[in-house]
Amino acid sequence: MSELDRETALEPDGDGRWRATVSDRWNIGDNPNGGYLVAIVLGAMRTLSAHPDPVSVTSHFLRPGVGGAPAVVTAEVLRAGRTLTTLRAELSQGGSTRVAVVAAFSDLDAATGATGSLTIDPPSLPSPDRCPRRSGDEQGVALPILDVLDIRIHPDQAEAGRAGRPEVSGWIRLRDGSPPDARALVLFADAFPPSLFGSLGPVGWVPTVELTVQVRRRPASGWVLGRSTTDDLDRGRMVEDGALWDSTGALVARSRQLGLLLPR
Amino acid sequence: MSELDRETALEPDGDGRWRATVSDRWNIGDNPNGGYLVAIVLGAMRTLSAHPDPVSVTSHFLRPGVGGAPAVVTAEVLRAGRTLTTLRAELSQGGSTRVAVVAAFSDLDAATGATGSLTIDPPSLPSPDRCPRRSGDEQGVALPILDVLDIRIHPDQAEAGRAGRPEVSGWIRLRDGSPPDARALVLFADAFPPSLFGSLGPVGWVPTVELTVQVRRRPASGWVLGRSTTDDLDRGRMVEDGALWDSTGALVARSRQLGLLLPR
Repeated sequence: MSELDRETALEPDGDGRWRATVSDRWNIGDNPNGGYLVAIVLGAMRTLSAHPDPVSVTSHFLRPGVGGAPAVVTAEVLRAGRTLTTLRAELSQGGSTRVAVVAAFSDLDAATGATGSLTIDPPSLPSPDRCPRRSGDEQGVALPILDVLDIRIHPDQAEAGRAGRPEVSGWIRLRDGSPPDARALVLFADAFPPSLFGSLGPVGWVPTVELTVQVRRRPASGWVLGRSTTDDLDRGRMVEDGALWDSTGALVARSRQLGLLLPR
Repeated sequence: MSELDRETALEPDGDGRWRATVSDRWNIGDNPNGGYLVAIVLGAMRTLSAHPDPVSVTSHFLRPGVGGAPAVVTAEVLRAGRTLTTLRAELSQGGSTRVAVVAAFSDLDAATGATGSLTIDPPSLPSPDRCPRRSGDEQGVALPILDVLDIRIHPDQAEAGRAGRPEVSGWIRLRDGSPPDARALVLFADAFPPSLFGSLGPVGWVPTVELTVQVRRRPASGWVLGRSTTDDLDRGRMVEDGALWDSTGALVARSRQLGLLLPR
């Protein structure tokens, strides 16, 4: 059982309702990483879905979660179809909803239609051992999550502001060596530093309003390569795009988020 | 009152519940355009929101809607915050949910933070009078929606398969001359032909699983320019990206959808 499975365990608590404990080991600063909360929610959705893989996951981050504290997850099926199961769910702590998720699950290995194919090639990146670990002292914020996620940043982009452009690329894997699955990709999509760090330097807190991840393929085992970029920042609101590739170079997930660039 | 306002009118029917009539004038083939159904839902969300503009709208299209038939819309606030109101809603017909929406509303004219700015420039396009109207006979499908939306396609891309690449660009406006607003942009983001037509030719029905639109600015009056592209098609599942610019050339919306390319 992987660390991620263990730390997203759910205890059934009635119809469409589960109890969970939000660990503080996935924290960024004082609060759990949003992607970790979503991973807990996806576990609940998965139990209600006839299809195994989350193929589209939209999360609205309403309030920061609380690490080391209990949570309640509720989930319901909106439609159970032949190809897709669509669900919505929420994770609450202390009676307040922290994250609301709507997702479609499908079977990524059940190919439908084969008319054409298009893909995005991965960026060229030095091997993981030549990329420095994501640093725990960005802007003075502690990153306990680095004990559970192994994140290496492109050497030219490891220092905030040094890349000169709003782009971050790097490698990521679960620190316990567990192979990634579709759910882990959703977590990975939210685990790199904001790409605006690359051009603007340390910019303060960049809270995510909404993050949508499309999982495209089940990932092969090994490192996952990620790249995120921002080409749209307007009056403190940014749209950041991300993509993930598995160890075979296959495009495995896309992501886009609306984030806020708060004044420091 | 614009045609869009009139045809998305809601009659309150209790707490968080409205009755509507889905018109058949926004049909693509036999069913209402998904963006039109979402426009109805956004009207209901708007009445519950202290903030006027939808800034992130995710729609899951569960079943085709039915034109010329009544509908029930339900909506609820997930969080009412200082900067954002987050809501979820559904539109049902005949007791079945057709579309499920989660959205964040904000005030696009209340600027926050001004650290840097980045934007995407609009593509170069001949003026609307030199771009042919979107044709009503693509793949033999009737497009009643063209009586309410004026859509002009880049002359090199107007014929399916002729562009040679998966890209469609063109102009769009409400046919009755009403100026666009943030809600109209969500509708516009779903109104161009699938960009895969550009490279693959007529490809059959391309149903949208999930569409997320980020509205970036309130649009100026006049034509809106749109471009959509697909660079990610894998075993019958595609991710299509779109962007909209207003008549001043400002980037006003982004969109991304997960769609299915069904075998003909």
